[in-house]
Amino acid sequence: MRNLMGIFMPLITLTTDFGTSSPYVAAMKGVILSICPHAQLVDLGHDLPPQDVVHAAYFLADAIPYFPERTIHVCVVDPGVGTDRALLLAEARRQFVLAPDNGVLTFVLEKLDRSASIRTLTESKFWRCDRSNTFHGRDILAPVAGHLALDTPAEMFGPTTAEWKRIDEPRPAIQDRCVEGSIVLVDGFGNLISNITATMLPKPPIRIQMGDHANVPFVDTYAEALPGTLVALIGSEGRLEIALVDGNAAAFVRAGVGSALVVAGA
Amino acid sequence: MRNLMGIFMPLITLTTDFGTSSPYVAAMKGVILSICPHAQLVDLGHDLPPQDVVHAAYFLADAIPYFPERTIHVCVVDPGVGTDRALLLAEARRQFVLAPDNGVLTFVLEKLDRSASIRTLTESKFWRCDRSNTFHGRDILAPVAGHLALDTPAEMFGPTTAEWKRIDEPRPAIQDRCVEGSIVLVDGFGNLISNITATMLPKPPIRIQMGDHANVPFVDTYAEALPGTLVALIGSEGRLEIALVDGNAAAFVRAGVGSALVVAGA
Amino acid sequence: MRNLMGIFMPLITLTTDFGTSSPYVAAMKGVILSICPHAQLVDLGHDLPPQDVVHAAYFLADAIPYFPERTIHVCVVDPGVGTDRALLLAEARRQFVLAPDNGVLTFVLEKLDRSASIRTLTESKFWRCDRSNTFHGRDILAPVAGHLALDTPAEMFGPTTAEWKRIDEPRPAIQDRCVEGSIVLVDGFGNLISNITATMLPKPPIRIQMGDHANVPFVDTYAEALPGTLVALIGSEGRLEIALVDGNAAAFVRAGVGSALVVAGA
Repeated sequence: MRNLMGIFMPLITLTTDFGTSSPYVAAMKGVILSICPHAQLVDLGHDLPPQDVVHAAYFLADAIPYFPERTIHVCVVDPGVGTDRALLLAEARRQFVLAPDNGVLTFVLEKLDRSASIRTLTESKFWRCDRSNTFHGRDILAPVAGHLALDTPAEMFGPTTAEWKRIDEPRPAIQDRCVEGSIVLVDGFGNLISNITATMLPKPPIRIQMGDHANVPFVDTYAEALPGTLVALIGSEGRLEIALVDGNAAAFVRAGVGSALVVAGA
Repeated sequence: MRNLMGIFMPLITLTTDFGTSSPYVAAMKGVILSICPHAQLVDLGHDLPPQDVVHAAYFLADAIPYFPERTIHVCVVDPGVGTDRALLLAEARRQFVLAPDNGVLTFVLEKLDRSASIRTLTESKFWRCDRSNTFHGRDILAPVAGHLALDTPAEMFGPTTAEWKRIDEPRPAIQDRCVEGSIVLVDGFGNLISNITATMLPKPPIRIQMGDHANVPFVDTYAEALPGTLVALIGSEGRLEIALVDGNAAAFVRAGVGSALVVAGA
Repeated sequence: MRNLMGIFMPLITLTTDFGTSSPYVAAMKGVILSICPHAQLVDLGHDLPPQDVVHAAYFLADAIPYFPERTIHVCVVDPGVGTDRALLLAEARRQFVLAPDNGVLTFVLEKLDRSASIRTLTESKFWRCDRSNTFHGRDILAPVAGHLALDTPAEMFGPTTAEWKRIDEPRPAIQDRCVEGSIVLVDGFGNLISNITATMLPKPPIRIQMGDHANVPFVDTYAEALPGTLVALIGSEGRLEIALVDGNAAAFVRAGVGSALVVAGA
């Protein structure tokens, strides 16, 4: 993040479930830029399903690893705002992630660094003086992101902790050359993305069952099947997904997060 | 907005009701960056309800005060485009706001500075030469924002005016320790935000009525009530709001902008 | 894109049909910024209708011409991902556009430069090493954009080609002072935008027919008619459009892309 003249322009990304018809994202941006006016703000997404921590956890895991060192990520999917849940600052592979302690860091830290340093935000001198009970994204996480971008050392914001919440992710059951998993994410195209990774698959996968569809063909790319065909393939993050060629699989199969997906080998 | 080397990177924010499936926001960004390529564009929101000036006025009031001095805000919610309504440049607490003269500045200027300097845009030499009748955001406001970012003094764009449109906001009626207000904003979570501020509330608020719900409990934070409970609390901008814990109050109560909210004291 | 100190901050715009509930846009941004951390990312729109190449082609044509020289545009509306369709780098009027070879460049190149230089991306050393079959936006287009922003010359990415896909756009039929066109785009307000340009119109246009509405009045601006009136006017890109004053014409007329629009002269 140094440009050609050696000037540092810190990157701060924002991920929320606020939508953009309400002024919440805007207020957070104002708070950050008031502290660090030369920060480069990058929107990752603000249309995450409201208060869906598991979706947000997958989102971060599929996005953050692509960013450069020193990026500061702020995630506000925070159904527990106003409770005594902590707010965390994680440092993993030289990136920072600020988020509530509700499990949203589970998958990204599994990918980046299982021994990441996690701190609890306790130093209120970096927070907004005038704090609400309902919007810690604006009043605590945004100003901490701004101060981090000004190179305040991470240890100034609070002590490390070994206790932080993990999501108890449903793992696929594997036995007798059969894998039983489930859909964990539905993307904007209606693709049904499962928790079955490429390495878990029996080789060759003989029979793939998704809902009433008992024998979904396994393909390498969408292009191998005709429009309107339901197919199974390995998606861009290495997980088995069900897609409808040129269509919306979620609507076609009437399936969603939690639906079962079964793969049998020979 | 000077970075560590003293280089000025002007901030320009954009707020519209265009959505982002249409190319209108994109065209405005192109116009601004063609005039001031080093501007830092910040999206505040493009999914505001179409042509809803009151919503946009609340949005700006809840967002702009958090931004640093010298920020330039462009708001295009402009049902009157093509009429003889003026276009305005307001300067308040050292920030700039460009918007149509339709009342959208009412609440933000009440918050920032009631004696803000307001100018009418008249100097067409700063506008696009080739102007449409339907898109003054692209043809007038965007180029003026670009020139402001290049440090053209505000007085170059047109004369000050004392005549500009205010929204005739419904104010809560307060009498006999009873406050009758109404919902003025519904956020992306379905929270019903009223025009009753914390200072207007009888202390203690004995009875809060929202639609058929005659006795909504008043809480400090969502966490004080069980999931599925309708609660009243002071939101992040200091206004009374009705929320459904872990749910969508607007859908649950079947209420929206204009619905009555009544608070009685002892 | 040089700022006041002569520092170059390259502009990269992103246009996709990914929505922002999924992490795909975020992943592309991470890839670009990992290669060129000082790039200025500008979102043009991520809510384009899924896999609708024609819509995307109009979007680019109405947005890109407003941007400054040296801007790099990345468009990922790519129903053919995983087939043998090529990926293209177009250079037109000193801007760059990266997109799949599916016709999405048709209209923007007609506007900018019919003799633009078009290259096929073949040099995989600029791509991500670990490539998926389903996300070439992240694995090929994003890294190529990053390297272009670092001033890698265009010829390094692949050879020029004269063969690239054009959309076979329906052109209006003009005869006997009568123009028969069709709706090609519906914007976020429900305005029905046609392929009939101002120059094609009979003068004066005597009779405009849209669906069951046999005589839509032709106006200069929305303000000439009362709220609730269906009107025809020349929109901001010079095309005839049908609008409902203070309302949604698409819903009112029950029309959409492909609907006929007929204009008769005297």
